[in-house]
This record gives sequence, structure tokens and C-alpha cells, in this order.
Amino acid sequence: MPANSGRVLLAYSGGLDTSCILAWLIEQGYEVYAFMADVGQEEDFDAAEKKALKDLKREFVTELIYPAVQANCIYENVYLLGTSLARPVIARGMIAVAEREGCDYVSHGCTGKGNDQVRFELAFYGLKPDIKVVAPWRIPEFYNRFPGRQALLQYAEQKGIPVVQTAAKPWSTDENLFHISYEAGILEDPNTTPPADMWKLTTAPENAPTEPERISIEFKGGLPIKVSVPEQGKEYTDGVEIFLALNALGRKHGIGRIDIVENRFIGVKSRGCYESPGATILRIAHVDLEGLTLDRNVRALRDQFVTIEFSRILYNGHFFTPEREFITSSIPTSQRTVNGLVRLKLYKGNVVVEGRESSEGLYDEQQSSMDELGGFEPTDTSGFIQIESIRIKKWAQANIRKGQAGVAPQDVYGSRV
Amino acid sequence: MPANSGRVLLAYSGGLDTSCILAWLIEQGYEVYAFMADVGQEEDFDAAEKKALKDLKREFVTELIYPAVQANCIYENVYLLGTSLARPVIARGMIAVAEREGCDYVSHGCTGKGNDQVRFELAFYGLKPDIKVVAPWRIPEFYNRFPGRQALLQYAEQKGIPVVQTAAKPWSTDENLFHISYEAGILEDPNTTPPADMWKLTTAPENAPTEPERISIEFKGGLPIKVSVPEQGKEYTDGVEIFLALNALGRKHGIGRIDIVENRFIGVKSRGCYESPGATILRIAHVDLEGLTLDRNVRALRDQFVTIEFSRILYNGHFFTPEREFITSSIPTSQRTVNGLVRLKLYKGNVVVEGRESSEGLYDEQQSSMDELGGFEPTDTSGFIQIESIRIKKWAQANIRKGQAGVAPQDVYGSRV
Amino acid sequence: MPANSGRVLLAYSGGLDTSCILAWLIEQGYEVYAFMADVGQEEDFDAAEKKALKDLKREFVTELIYPAVQANCIYENVYLLGTSLARPVIARGMIAVAEREGCDYVSHGCTGKGNDQVRFELAFYGLKPDIKVVAPWRIPEFYNRFPGRQALLQYAEQKGIPVVQTAAKPWSTDENLFHISYEAGILEDPNTTPPADMWKLTTAPENAPTEPERISIEFKGGLPIKVSVPEQGKEYTDGVEIFLALNALGRKHGIGRIDIVENRFIGVKSRGCYESPGATILRIAHVDLEGLTLDRNVRALRDQFVTIEFSRILYNGHFFTPEREFITSSIPTSQRTVNGLVRLKLYKGNVVVEGRESSEGLYDEQQSSMDELGGFEPTDTSGFIQIESIRIKKWAQANIRKGQAGVAPQDVYGSRV
Amino acid sequence: MPANSGRVLLAYSGGLDTSCILAWLIEQGYEVYAFMADVGQEEDFDAAEKKALKDLKREFVTELIYPAVQANCIYENVYLLGTSLARPVIARGMIAVAEREGCDYVSHGCTGKGNDQVRFELAFYGLKPDIKVVAPWRIPEFYNRFPGRQALLQYAEQKGIPVVQTAAKPWSTDENLFHISYEAGILEDPNTTPPADMWKLTTAPENAPTEPERISIEFKGGLPIKVSVPEQGKEYTDGVEIFLALNALGRKHGIGRIDIVENRFIGVKSRGCYESPGATILRIAHVDLEGLTLDRNVRALRDQFVTIEFSRILYNGHFFTPEREFITSSIPTSQRTVNGLVRLKLYKGNVVVEGRESSEGLYDEQQSSMDELGGFEPTDTSGFIQIESIRIKKWAQANIRKGQAGVAPQDVYGSRV
Repeated sequence: MPANSGRVLLAYSGGLDTSCILAWLIEQGYEVYAFMADVGQEEDFDAAEKKALKDLKREFVTELIYPAVQANCIYENVYLLGTSLARPVIARGMIAVAEREGCDYVSHGCTGKGNDQVRFELAFYGLKPDIKVVAPWRIPEFYNRFPGRQALLQYAEQKGIPVVQTAAKPWSTDENLFHISYEAGILEDPNTTPPADMWKLTTAPENAPTEPERISIEFKGGLPIKVSVPEQGKEYTDGVEIFLALNALGRKHGIGRIDIVENRFIGVKSRGCYESPGATILRIAHVDLEGLTLDRNVRALRDQFVTIEFSRILYNGHFFTPEREFITSSIPTSQRTVNGLVRLKLYKGNVVVEGRESSEGLYDEQQSSMDELGGFEPTDTSGFIQIESIRIKKWAQANIRKGQAGVAPQDVYGSRV
Repeated sequence: MPANSGRVLLAYSGGLDTSCILAWLIEQGYEVYAFMADVGQEEDFDAAEKKALKDLKREFVTELIYPAVQANCIYENVYLLGTSLARPVIARGMIAVAEREGCDYVSHGCTGKGNDQVRFELAFYGLKPDIKVVAPWRIPEFYNRFPGRQALLQYAEQKGIPVVQTAAKPWSTDENLFHISYEAGILEDPNTTPPADMWKLTTAPENAPTEPERISIEFKGGLPIKVSVPEQGKEYTDGVEIFLALNALGRKHGIGRIDIVENRFIGVKSRGCYESPGATILRIAHVDLEGLTLDRNVRALRDQFVTIEFSRILYNGHFFTPEREFITSSIPTSQRTVNGLVRLKLYKGNVVVEGRESSEGLYDEQQSSMDELGGFEPTDTSGFIQIESIRIKKWAQANIRKGQAGVAPQDVYGSRV
Repeated sequence: MPANSGRVLLAYSGGLDTSCILAWLIEQGYEVYAFMADVGQEEDFDAAEKKALKDLKREFVTELIYPAVQANCIYENVYLLGTSLARPVIARGMIAVAEREGCDYVSHGCTGKGNDQVRFELAFYGLKPDIKVVAPWRIPEFYNRFPGRQALLQYAEQKGIPVVQTAAKPWSTDENLFHISYEAGILEDPNTTPPADMWKLTTAPENAPTEPERISIEFKGGLPIKVSVPEQGKEYTDGVEIFLALNALGRKHGIGRIDIVENRFIGVKSRGCYESPGATILRIAHVDLEGLTLDRNVRALRDQFVTIEFSRILYNGHFFTPEREFITSSIPTSQRTVNGLVRLKLYKGNVVVEGRESSEGLYDEQQSSMDELGGFEPTDTSGFIQIESIRIKKWAQANIRKGQAGVAPQDVYGSRV
Repeated sequence: MPANSGRVLLAYSGGLDTSCILAWLIEQGYEVYAFMADVGQEEDFDAAEKKALKDLKREFVTELIYPAVQANCIYENVYLLGTSLARPVIARGMIAVAEREGCDYVSHGCTGKGNDQVRFELAFYGLKPDIKVVAPWRIPEFYNRFPGRQALLQYAEQKGIPVVQTAAKPWSTDENLFHISYEAGILEDPNTTPPADMWKLTTAPENAPTEPERISIEFKGGLPIKVSVPEQGKEYTDGVEIFLALNALGRKHGIGRIDIVENRFIGVKSRGCYESPGATILRIAHVDLEGLTLDRNVRALRDQFVTIEFSRILYNGHFFTPEREFITSSIPTSQRTVNGLVRLKLYKGNVVVEGRESSEGLYDEQQSSMDELGGFEPTDTSGFIQIESIRIKKWAQANIRKGQAGVAPQDVYGSRV
């Protein structure tokens, strides 16, 4: 019989892996507490648990998802960061429970090649630097003992663990309120088209309604405060309900599927498919409204620095770090003027902006107009162009003097390889 | 009778504005040469002209469009820069003709509030710093004399200028091989949905075929070298033909419409609608292939610097400048490994990546696999995480010492305004 | 006699230019109010004025200089932005007086080629967008009438303006608490060494004391809160006094002279010489303390974005803009841990850091030590290196396969031109 | 007796550590080859070796140092990267020898907490991804056996290794042509002032000549091509000789000492002192000449991206990576116009620019002049300012409408913490 190894809090999903890890940790002499987070995945929690976990969903939406919406976060131009966004909330929940229950250890079932192990553990350390982590899939005694699914199933049977006998899907998933991810298995060949029945959170565009649906989203300070869905005769104003309503609309109209090869933090390329229905709608609306309401230079600086750096921070699991604190400290100021309403058409995978309005006044119809002068002296532009051209002319004159007029010899226009 | 003011080369479109400008310049004593560029707009050039202008289309595609594709250029997250990309080619053509014909002046019909005047003139000065520019819409004698369309029509009649009596569209357009833009008129209210009959280059998604179509695009060094269209039983390998084939496919399937409020270089917000069918398909394929074939850090640096800066340079008309030369000089190296093939499904406005392949070898199925160890020591990740956490733990310890554990008081998670 | 043109507030320095402008504005029918700012220049204000202007000096130090110190602002690697920093404070003071006195116009004596006209006017517009600006040096009636100093002197005599008959220095200066600038005149040849008697705020290093002097500066939140000067037996704790004490020390030890060719906002290159004695000492101390107390990633992001962008914003006169508001909103968070003390040696132009200390705890002597393990597992680094090398090995393998091992043919190591 | 473990190439310095490692590797059954690089450190190589290693010094200067000079590389605002720059050259030399001699292993004596282990090993893997690395200071059998200097000395005696019995200095050094570094030992307390006798490559400013010395440096394409030293009556034109001559001048005049706390790649803060005499002079001259000869926008982009990213790449040991190849590919274009001469005064730690000249023509004395109009229309600036103010006025108007005129309530000017 093993000695008492200490008290451990395990991030428990109820699946085969974490069920076996739970049993194995007990075998190793740990006193095990299981932690189950409700971050909105479609699962069958019983009523009591639902109540207990309610808050986690709200903080996921308001503290993680919405800042990411405000900053237009996106990783490698495509991925909306659904898994990354849930990790800090789960980790914080775990550390709170670990402290309450006096656990010296936390544990998880993440593999040794993925991003999530890094995200979880860096979050643990950023919140409680003296916490100890047990990561069985990186412990040779564990991973050598369980080289495949069969070994886990056998162990489960032996330990009397009731395993829901679903036929194993040929891929792995991670689901929460924001999205679902699919990876591994048959998806590891990046040239394999995902089978139609893989997608779980959205209708295929081909099967989506043949009639477009119009909705509108109102923002205040870059945050959605009202979603109007005339077809339902409904308006949503609560933060979580807004997100759930957009998810349902996205699902119905086949919005938010992506399929990419991405670069994991550990340097391995990996193929992933994702569905983020509501987040996709929200992003398009928010980006559009910024066109109307955000100053050009603020937008440019925010895009180049905050959007890119915050996205990288989230992807790499650096949420509880000083650089995240630094980067997000400028978000509220950037969103001060992002107030207004965007009208959208949803149709078979498309989110079409049909109009937007705001009382911010940075857009000025008269000034913008090509048909009238609008308090604008055309001759000013002449001065502007002359000043703008000063250094360009100097450079051009030097080129001409050197016989490199127009384009210098080494200037390959970027296209040749 | 006016004195001889000199010889001027006018960028002439054949429309009402530039026809009147032509007459007015003659009135001012200029000897006027007209310059008409074929950058692929759908117009009725006669045969002789077509031949003369052939080269301009090719250089537009190979020298401007393709570097922009390689760098994933995009302005303010949405606009693919179609008008901006054509300007340098037209300006270079004009300067060549101006030099050949001994013109001391160049002229254009751009308004005084837009981007195009800046793009044209900075390009002129970057190529020939001593060229003189006549911009009638910024000359009070001109713009005060022609305060609206009626005045121009009257002048045209008086000068015997044959005006094609199309009913004036309630918006302006600019068209080339890459795209068409719509702005001004009724579009100046950003909340007005563009009428269905405005869109010219693409079918509405609602009217696009109900059957998806599959194609593939092969890239070498980040440039498209072959487009296969099985439904047509055709393959395209010539640079210009590839682009035209993708345009036709995008048109058919309702791909590449956008509607935005953007920030002009002169600081005015402006509403624009654009159709870029082929470019949209190409961008999605290129971005996807980079996932498979481009190193993570090269991609990140390229996205943050080259993509953003080159896009801004293009938008602001800074093509013939030292900074453009500098920024594009790194594109070929960035694209060295972007070789491979992307398979796409086109369907009612959607461009869906269904798979991709490459022999570059940066993606390693075995190494990426969640199901096998694949030449990867899971324990290495433990070391990686420990090292990554060193500075985070120090910060967390300091927070705890100061009573700011977890999240410091002033840390508002970015979302409040 | 001219009609009443309105009430104008003139930024008045008491020198020849603004004295003539004052008279000329009256001639043009304006009712003129003169505004004189005490931003710490070494001038002979009388007692009453000194009292009235006291606050401007304090806000200059605390609201402009110190944020710039916190962000390590520097333009083009060398210039500490002394003139740029004073402009927003002066402009704000002027707008306040203009509003109080009901002036519809503000005026200044800046030339039409410099930065300061832009800085003043953009600040005016950012504070009061409907203010009207009279810039005589850009009004042909004025600049054609006064083509040189002689014309101004004649006009002054004619108008009975008492001109202090200093022999005209062959350069122009702008001075405030932070620095003095020298430009124009003989300095316009960038190869002319400034004469020894030009420098006004600092002793030449050659003439500075032959004995080094030790001081220490204590920072809290990146702001200097105490300067100890043992040689004087004094400690300074007031914000303005700290800056003045450092200025005196820098002056004595020949610290803070620079001589550069810089790029003005309007695109013209310009030669400028500057003395910033106190600011130079403060910058070196602050940068050093950040080494000890600021997290690596926060520092890197702050350097690349905030330092560079805020410096450009200041130089270009964009202080009262949304992008300045955005950029500076992240400074306080970045400086949360910048607490501690730096010990300096001042000697003949050198500022030598001799030591630093902090109780922040991000530096850990034991962990850093090369002589002991210090709670550090050397084997962790092996894992770190293995993970870091994953994508590099993939790239190297591809190079080898392609026969481009080591370094690809097109890779010119950056040095050839 | 151990089995044959394979052939290993050891980076050998001749010091105690690597001498013991050599013996220990033999003990472990390796066949050991020793590799000694001459990168310009002041050591007593015998004649034969000197000749053999000549080329390494030249490639160090021309392939590593000069691109870093062209890009103004600097880490954390202060450190000129001397150690980092030597590593790629040494690693490439080792891999070449390892391949020639059929070594499957390479080994080094770097500690497990430092940067150099990472730099060496990532370079090895980037050149030869299948090389195997033996890092004894990260192997428990080694580091547990040799917990301190005494154990190494005993082992050396036992193995008959002749150890030069220098009194152990209370710090470690790394020296090459570019610089010397000091760290560890008594320097680990960041508040300890380095003793005067530590500094080896430079005279103390206090002891440097009391007379200034003038020199000039001529650059072509950003590279130094001639150094003139009138006091010596000499001119240097060879790349390596130029660098050595500047080193001698810097040494004489007390130039190039720094003392910092820096952030290692592995996340530990570390105190280091460095002397880089020649590099400091060269950097100041190069930065200055760029003021005269480099376009503003190229300089700004290069500073923000190439300088910062290349410096980080060098520091972190990512030289043989795709991102280094990408970043350096733009250096030659950036330096096309950096041609001219800089005159310097060297005096007791100061490098004072006294003038510069160039025939590039980007600086235009007449245009820059404050005293004449110089082909410049002052009224153009009015237009420029009006256009620049458009979006600022819109923002200011919105602020006023909202009662946030001037500065919004949440705008804290950056200074408070």
C-alpha cells in the first residue's frame, strides 16, 4: 500500500482518460479531489452541479471572451482562441478549490505534446507559484503503462470505472461555450477533409435555411449590450444570454467553421478544426463598428500591438502574467468610442454587414462626401501632398543621380523567390 | 486665347469628369495628351488599344497583386486594396509616356478628398520628382466653376463632348482586374444597405449555384502556379489567366463582397463597398498554405510587420518610396517554403479549405500526433514549462507578498470602459 | 485703419520675432493678448509673472516629463524630446487663457518649415477644434514683407519696439526646464562642429570637475521620488526640485549634450544640437532600474510599442489625440514594479551606474547564481532546449533535403549591399 | 572500462572546466576531439593555431558583427551582444569539424542556467539537426560529482591536468574580438560596484588621456570602409583591421563599459558587466550617419522591427533559424543610402560626433534652412496641418459633446501608478 503522497485536485472531465488518471493517482497514494468546470460545454451535469458552476460560465464570458472580442483577438489570422480562453477561468477555479481544500497538488489529463498542458500549468504557477503539478501523460510510469486506448479501457474495467461505451470517435474534441475543437486521429493528415458528421455545433451551410435572417447587435464601449432578433421577436441584454443567442443563430445558419494547420507553442505544427458560431458573428460586427467609431491611429496601433500580442499571450497560456496585465490595461481606453449598432444578415455561412450607426460623430457624412466640399478646403490637400512628398522627392532625386530612377536594381518588387 | 501653358498628360477614363477636364485643360492653354490604362476593368476598348495596353495588365498582376498576395495584404482587417494596387502601375505607365512625349505636366480627375489623388501624385513624385501636377478638383477656378454634375453636363454639351447618357448611378465606382469599388452617393449614409443591383462583379450568394464546386490551387514560393478546375476540365498556369479564372469562379459563387467604413489617408472616414472575387479565394488559400509550410516565427514576424506595414504603404500610396523598397525586400525570403497545394470548396459566398499538402516537411504527422510519442520526449515539455514559468513565478510571488495575488487590484481584465 | 479682425492670443517670447508679430497683428486689426509661459527657461521674469506661471512648470514636470521618463522616450535613438514635451503644456495654457479672455484666434511665431508649428496647432485643435490659428510665417503678406532679420529690426524700430541689442547669435535656440535646443544658422552645415561657446546649459566635459561625484535616485512606480546628493548633504523629494537638482548636477559634470541630424515631421532632415543634463541622468537611472525590476516580456513589449510610439507621438505633436490617450493608458501598469534605488557616478560627461537595489524580488541572486543550483533543475533546461529546437530542426532538415544546409544561397547574412 | 560511447567534439577553452570535461568525457568512453576557436580573445595561441584559426576571426567580423552594426543591434537598450555574436561562428566551425572528423556528438562547458548553452545548441541543431549534444553541466552524474571548484581542481590533479594556478577571480569572463563579459561571483549582488581592477579591455575614463583625440569613420552601405586616425598618421581599410583599430582607440579613451541587470532567455535576471570599446564607437558613428543619410520612414520601420527583432534573435541564440534569415534579408536594402563620413572626438569615455558628411543628398541645407524659403512653400504646411487635424478635430468635438473636452476623465497622463 502506497504512502500518503498528498492531496491532489484533478481537472476531471468524466471521460476515459481522466477517470483512469483519477484511479491511478489514488494508486500512487494521493488523496484525490475531482474538479469539473462548467464552461458551457454541452454536457449532462446534474442540477446541483449546474448551480454550483453557474458563475464560472459568467466569468468566462465577461472576463475572458469579451476582452478578446474588444481586442479582435485571433491567432494566425484564423483561429478565435476558444480553448485558450477557457483555460484561465478553469485554472483559477481549480486554484481556488485547491486552496480551500488544502491540496498541495493539481493534476490534469493533457497530453505532453499539446498547448493545454502549458496553458494550465503556467496559469497555476501565475496564480500560486508554489503549487505542484502532476501531469501523468508526461510521467514515464504512466505513459509507458498506458500506451493506447486499449490499455486504458482494460484498466478502467479492472478498477470498476463505468465507461460510457461510446464508439471511439476518430478525433479528439474540446468544447465550451465559445467553441468546439477537433484534432488528432484522422485529422492528423492535413489533406483529409473532415467528415460531414464531425461538425457538432453548426449546421452545414448547405443545410442551413434558404432564407437569410436579419439581426442587430448594439455595442457600448466595445461590448455587446443588446442583440435584437426580430424573427424571434426577442432582444437579449444579459452578457451570457447575448452570447448564447448568437451561438444559436450561428449554429442555425452554418457560421463559424474553420479548418487550419496552426503552430503550437511547443513548436509543432498541428491540424485543428473549430466551430465558433457566436464568436464569429460578434467579431465581424465588432470589427465593422470600429470602422465607424474608432480613430484611425488608435485602430492601427491596437491592431499591430494589442490584437497580435494579446492573441499570442492567450494562445501560449500566458494569461496570469505581467505582460497580459500590461497589454490588457490599454483595452478600455481603446474602446471608449466603440458605441453603436450593427445590422447583420446571416445566410448559409455568411455574415453580411448591412449597415451600422453610431452617435459618436467620428464619421461625418458631409465631410466624407465626394459630392460636396463639406467644410473642407481642397487646396489643403495640395499642401498635404507637397509636404508628404518632400522626402520622397529627395529619395527619387538621389535615385536618378545614381541611375536608379524609378526602381533600384536590387528591388525585386517582392514577388520573386 | 490662352498662352501655351505646356504639355500635359491626362489620366483619362472616358467618363464625364475626365472628358470635361480634358476640354478645360485645352481651354487653359495646355497641349493635352490622354492616357488610358487597361488594368482589367470591364470596358469596351477597341482592338488597337487592347494590344497597346496588354502589358499593363500583366505587370499589375505580377508586380503588384502577387507580392500583395504573398504578404497577405489587407487594410483595417477587411479591405484587400484593389484600387491601391492599380495606382502604381498606372502612374508608372503615365510617367513613361510623359517622358516619351515630353510632357512637363500630368493631370488626373481625382477629387480633393480622396485617397487616389495622393496615391497618384506621390507615385509621380517618387518616379519623377520634378514632374508638375495639375489637379483640377483642387483648383478653385475649376471646382467653383463646376459645382455639380449639371454644370459638367452643360459644359460637355457646350464643348461638343459626346457623353454616353447613362442614367447617373447614385454612387461612384473604380474597377480593375482585381476588384470594383463603390462609394459616394447613397452609400455615404453608412446605415444604407447597398441595393442588390449595385454589385457588378459577383452573383449574390442567394443566387449562386446550389451545388458546391471544388478547385485546387498550387503555390510555389507563395505564388499561384496552377489552378485546377475539374468542373471545367481545365488547368490554368499563366499568371494572368490564373487570376482571371479565379475571378470567374468567385463571381459565379458569390465570393468576395465587402462593405466597410474605412479611414482614408487624409483622415476622413469613408464608406466603401468592394468586390474582389478572385483575390478573396487566393488570399484564403495562401493563408492556409502558410499554416502548413511557413515557420511559426517567420509567420508571426511577417504578419506583424510586413503584412501590416506593406498594406499601409499600399493604401497610403507610398509605393515608390524607400520604405516600400525596404519592406518588400524581405518578402521573397519569407515565401521560400510556401510550396504546396490547397483544395477548396466554393459555395454561396463561402471559400472552404478542404485539405492541403506540401513536400516541405515542416508539418510532421507523426510528431504532431496525439496518439503516439513520435520522436518526442514528453518529459522535455516538463523542462520547457519549468523554464517558461521561472519569471512568472517570480512575479506571482511578488504579487502574493504585496497582497495582490492572482490579479492585481488595478487589473481590470480589459473589459470595463 | 483696419477693421476689427477679432481677438487673438499670441504665444509671446519677448524676442524680436514675436515682438514684431505682435505689432503686425495689431496692424492687421486684431486685438492682441500676449501669452508668456514659464516652462523653466533661464529668463528674467519679474516676480509677479513668476508667481502666475509657477503651475505651468510643475505640470510640465509631472504631466509631461515624468511619463516620458517612465516610458524611456527617445526619438531616433538619440533625442530626448525636450521641445516636444513643452508644447502640450504651453498649448493647453494658451487655450485656457483664450477661452477665459474670449479670443477666437491664437497665434505663434514658429517658422513654416519646423515641427513646432505643427505641435502647437495640432494641440490647439485637439483641445478646442474650432479655434482659429494665425501663423504669420506662413502668411505671404507677412513673410514677403519680412524676408530677413534686417526687415524685422527696421520694423521694430519704426514701431518703437525696444529690442535688446544682443549680437545676433548665428543659431536659434529654444529653452525650457528640460533642455535647450540649437539649430539653424551655422549649424545648417551638418559637418560644422558647434563652437564651444554655443553650449549654454552644461560645462564641457573637458572643463568638468576632475573628481567624480556619487548620487543616488530612488524610484517608485517608475517615478523619481528621492535624489540624494551626499556632496551637498542634501536630499530632494519634490518632483520639480528633483528635476532641477539633476539639471544642476548634469550641468556641473558635462552631461547630456547631443548633436544630430533628425527627421522632422514634415519630412525635412534637420540638424539640431541639444543639452538635456538632468533628463540624461534620469533616463540612464530609470532604464537601469527596469533591468532589475521589470519583467522581461513587459519590458520588451513596452520598448517596441509604447517607447517607440509615444516618442513618435510626442515628436509629431500628437499629444492631444486619441492615440496618445491610448498609448499612455498602459504606462502605469508597466511601471507597477519599477521600485528601487540606483547609485550613479557622474564624471566628465559619463553617467556610470555603480549599483542598484530593490525589494521587488524579480531578481533572485541565488537563482541567478552560476555557482549554485538555486532551486533550479539543470535538466529542465535540456527539455526547454529540445522543445525550442523542434521547429528549428524541421527547418534544418528541409534545408538539407533541398541542399541548402546551414544557410540558404540567397541568405546574404545581411551585410552586403 | 567504459564501452565506446562515440566520437565527440568538445568546445575547449583550455580552462579548468573544459579540461575536466575533456577528461570526464574520456572516462565516459567517448573519443574526444578538442575544438578551440580564435574569435579574437586575448590569449596565447601558438603560431600554428593562430594561422589555422585566422578565418574564424574574419567571418566573425564580416558575417556577424557588421550586420549587427548595420542594424544597430542592442539588447534591452544597453547590451551590444558581444557574446551572442560569437556563438554562431564558433558553432558553425564546430559543426564543420564534427562533420569532417565524423563526430556524432558535440559538447560544451556552459552551465545549465545561462544563455550560452541555448545559443550553442540551437545553432548546432539549426546546422545539423541530427547532431547529439553532451552538456555535462546538465547531467546529474557530472554536476553532482563536481559541486564546486575544489572538486574540479582535485579531479584535474588526479587526472594530471596541468592547471594554470591563477588565483581564481571572483567572477567569470567571456572574451572575444568584440567584447569581454564579466558575471557571477561577487557581481551577483547587483548593488556591488565592480572593482576597478576587474575591467580588462579599457582604461578607466579617469585614467584616460586628458587630451581628446579626433578620428573619422567612412561608411559604404552601412559598413565601415575606412577609419582615419590622424594622431597615428594611419588609415585602416581592411574589415578586421578597422575593428581592431577602433578597439585600441576605445581602450585608450575609456569607452564602452556597461554594467546592467539583463533578462536571460531562460527567464532569469542576471547581472553582467561588459566592455565593447570598438563596437561602441562604431555604433555611435553608424547611428549618426543614418540621421544624415537614411530616409525617415525606413529608419523608423527598421528601428522598430529589424533592430529589435534581430537583437532578440541574436541574444536568444536563434541565428540559424528561418526568422533570422527573414529578418536579415531586409538589411542590405535598408543600408543602400548609408554612405558618408562621421568625424568623432574621443575623450574620457565620451564619443562625441563633431560633424558628418555624405553625397547622398537626402539632407538639403537650403530646404532645411530656417533662414530662407528654400524651394518650400510655407503655405503647403498650412494644408498639411489642416489635413493632419481632421480626425483630431473630430475626436475633440466628440469629447466636447460628451463633456470630456481636453482630456477625458480616465486619461491619467500615464504617470500615476
